Amino acid sequence: MTQTKEAIDSLSQWYGKEELRIMKEFFDFLRFQSISAEKEFKGQVLACADFVQNYLKSLGFEVERWETVGYPTLFARSADFDPDKPTVLIYNHYDVQPVDPLEEWDSAPFEPEIRDGEVYARGAQDNKGQCFYSLQAIRALMEVKGKLPVNLKLCIEGEEEKGSEGISKILAEKASELKADYLVVADVGIRAPDKPAITLGVRGMAAMSVEVEGPNSDLHSGAHGGMVYNPNHALVKILASLHDENGRVTVPGFYDGVEEPSPEMLAAFSFEGTEEEYEALVGVPPTGGEKAYPFLQRGTIRPTIEINGVGGGYSGSGFKTVIPAKAMAKVSCRLVPGQDPDRINRLVGDFICGQAPKGIKVRVQRHHGGQAARGSTDSLAAEAFRQAYTEVFGTPCQMILEGGSIPVIADMNHYVQGELVLMGLGLPDDQIHAPNEHFGVDRFRKGFLIMARALELMGEGKTL
Amino acid sequence: MTQTKEAIDSLSQWYGKEELRIMKEFFDFLRFQSISAEKEFKGQVLACADFVQNYLKSLGFEVERWETVGYPTLFARSADFDPDKPTVLIYNHYDVQPVDPLEEWDSAPFEPEIRDGEVYARGAQDNKGQCFYSLQAIRALMEVKGKLPVNLKLCIEGEEEKGSEGISKILAEKASELKADYLVVADVGIRAPDKPAITLGVRGMAAMSVEVEGPNSDLHSGAHGGMVYNPNHALVKILASLHDENGRVTVPGFYDGVEEPSPEMLAAFSFEGTEEEYEALVGVPPTGGEKAYPFLQRGTIRPTIEINGVGGGYSGSGFKTVIPAKAMAKVSCRLVPGQDPDRINRLVGDFICGQAPKGIKVRVQRHHGGQAARGSTDSLAAEAFRQAYTEVFGTPCQMILEGGSIPVIADMNHYVQGELVLMGLGLPDDQIHAPNEHFGVDRFRKGFLIMARALELMGEGKTL
Repeated sequence: MTQTKEAIDSLSQWYGKEELRIMKEFFDFLRFQSISAEKEFKGQVLACADFVQNYLKSLGFEVERWETVGYPTLFARSADFDPDKPTVLIYNHYDVQPVDPLEEWDSAPFEPEIRDGEVYARGAQDNKGQCFYSLQAIRALMEVKGKLPVNLKLCIEGEEEKGSEGISKILAEKASELKADYLVVADVGIRAPDKPAITLGVRGMAAMSVEVEGPNSDLHSGAHGGMVYNPNHALVKILASLHDENGRVTVPGFYDGVEEPSPEMLAAFSFEGTEEEYEALVGVPPTGGEKAYPFLQRGTIRPTIEINGVGGGYSGSGFKTVIPAKAMAKVSCRLVPGQDPDRINRLVGDFICGQAPKGIKVRVQRHHGGQAARGSTDSLAAEAFRQAYTEVFGTPCQMILEGGSIPVIADMNHYVQGELVLMGLGLPDDQIHAPNEHFGVDRFRKGFLIMARALELMGEGKTL
Repeated sequence: MTQTKEAIDSLSQWYGKEELRIMKEFFDFLRFQSISAEKEFKGQVLACADFVQNYLKSLGFEVERWETVGYPTLFARSADFDPDKPTVLIYNHYDVQPVDPLEEWDSAPFEPEIRDGEVYARGAQDNKGQCFYSLQAIRALMEVKGKLPVNLKLCIEGEEEKGSEGISKILAEKASELKADYLVVADVGIRAPDKPAITLGVRGMAAMSVEVEGPNSDLHSGAHGGMVYNPNHALVKILASLHDENGRVTVPGFYDGVEEPSPEMLAAFSFEGTEEEYEALVGVPPTGGEKAYPFLQRGTIRPTIEINGVGGGYSGSGFKTVIPAKAMAKVSCRLVPGQDPDRINRLVGDFICGQAPKGIKVRVQRHHGGQAARGSTDSLAAEAFRQAYTEVFGTPCQMILEGGSIPVIADMNHYVQGELVLMGLGLPDDQIHAPNEHFGVDRFRKGFLIMARALELMGEGKTL
């Protein structure tokens, strides 16, 4: 344990000396308005890419700027690869979410400031904060140890917040560059400040828009009610048919390939949390999803279909007796291993179209999708990160699964061909896609320590 | 038949002489921006009431201005009531619908103009046009014959387009004034320019808003999908449960008191029109409503529940993986004789609330409502108007039922205690609640002739 304390102490000392510089540079990074989803910020996104490119060069890395149909990905490699050491690819992104509604921000989203120990800015956590502590971990290891404990590859893309189209399209041609023993995605979080955890799975995604069309134009519900098939009726019938009375998805083939959780798996992962705790968090008990499974399993290792939006006819104040010409829905599926997004999109889309009553046309348009991804619980990376979290928090690190999706990850790991670990210090209330995004200064420091210490442990090829 | 020809000819001659003055005064009436639903037009609505009040006085009528919680009703009585003659109450309204979207009007809505034989203005048909030809019919009868053939009462209200609240609340206290042998509502239309018809029924209405509430705030469908009960799912399940697979309403008690149509009734009324004609009109065949009934019956003599609006979550372009905190719907029922709006509102509201799954709160708020109304096929008024339409069109007049509702009518007739007839010269494409409302100059003239001739026939107490 002396070795552990020494390692953490020397990293902490380095961080203490460097902290002012780190925060200054981090704030510079945060000031770029790198909103990938909004075209008017193109110049700022590209300027942010330049900043990252120069920063990686300053670390002594070989840097490639991969141009894509969208924004560039910065790819960097540490010098002097040692064939006897493991190779680790760290994934981050430098783009951020839009800032609307701007008026709900207490401080300007691109003028970072620290209040009560939290850095407030768009991207403070997602993902500039977690990207920048990762870069500081690398810098510390090089300065403290004189060299890196592992061979490092960094992949920092610029379109995660709008679906990662650019990088996704060049993954195949970059297969040899991407190849690594481990893929570390530094873009997730923990469930509570005192619950250190690594994440070993994200769900996949298949999303679609549904449009239901009836008469040529909106009709009066007195003159036509009972005669024309109301598109709102068709919409609710179709959407209601997606689940049975037990919350199970009714689309034939939807569950094909989905494995029941093994006792080993249920034992390995933390599914901590009571229905009461859930109710305290969101205001209602967890009564959605498949009745046959406990709620935390339903939210992580079971696939879902959720209706993200419905719209049709009049929804303002008062009343309008209209039968609308059209109605629409947004539908998305969260997928687990064994489910292919294209196949699920086709199955669900066909099912929805197949429910159309006579007099109603239904069209389904596919949106983005991606495979689920899982990492082994006993890989060197999983063990190193678990140990690093445990050391830094002084509390045993759990293994968890995430209900959300990072669609590019499974695709990327197909080419990385490494063991996957997702890490991060986010918390559920960081407001990452909302006004007043923030990230704790202390969590930034913890993230730095965990990343540095885990890489160190991996370099030793062993854990305690 | 000579008598008929002479009667029509003398009315036509009077109209020909007076036409310029009539159109000038009609345009003055149309220029008032008497939009009852929008508060900023209050002064214009009241100025329009003054105009009507003065016009009625100029006819020599005794005029009362009934103040209400909303806009005034003008009530007028012809002089020298003759106890041997029938008393006829004619209902109209002087308020009009809002004009949005203003940019879709080809000419200003309150600057009437004639194009291709049609008067374009808000209210040109609904109801200022039909009100004003009725007043001209009265003037003509007095000037041509020297006196009116019947005892006349006129009730012209100012809030029909926003639910008739004001007049509805004073009906009971005005019972003795309203009492008449016949209630003639000059606010409907015919199905085609060559299909003269009187209307002997409107459906009633029970309207409500439904709000479905789940978690405290919008949630991420990855992090919470499968755990929380998605309010969109609750909404579509609840709304889909309102009808069975045959389009029949499933709410217990909904059809209580609804009589099956008798062979006599089906023979008396015109249910003309093929599914092909319906499809040509609206673009789709009539596949909605109860499968057990022909479509024109479903649209007139059968009650319905229609979903007028649904909304919940994200419905813009692209995608947002949200589970919304709330979802909503607007639901309205069209009622037939035997159904009480309050009872139906309670039954449907209770049914909807009773479908709420655990974890979801459902609230139902009632909106306006009204009883269905029916008139006899063989009353003196029905026979007089049928004959007048037949004479003016030169084509046999049909009897029809209307699928829409004029909620105040059944309530009013409860106090009038007379036989009901609805008449008018509207056509389905008059755009009455839409931009570019219009009414044909020729139809105005026909309406004038029919109203005058029918009153004349009623005064003779017989039809040919």
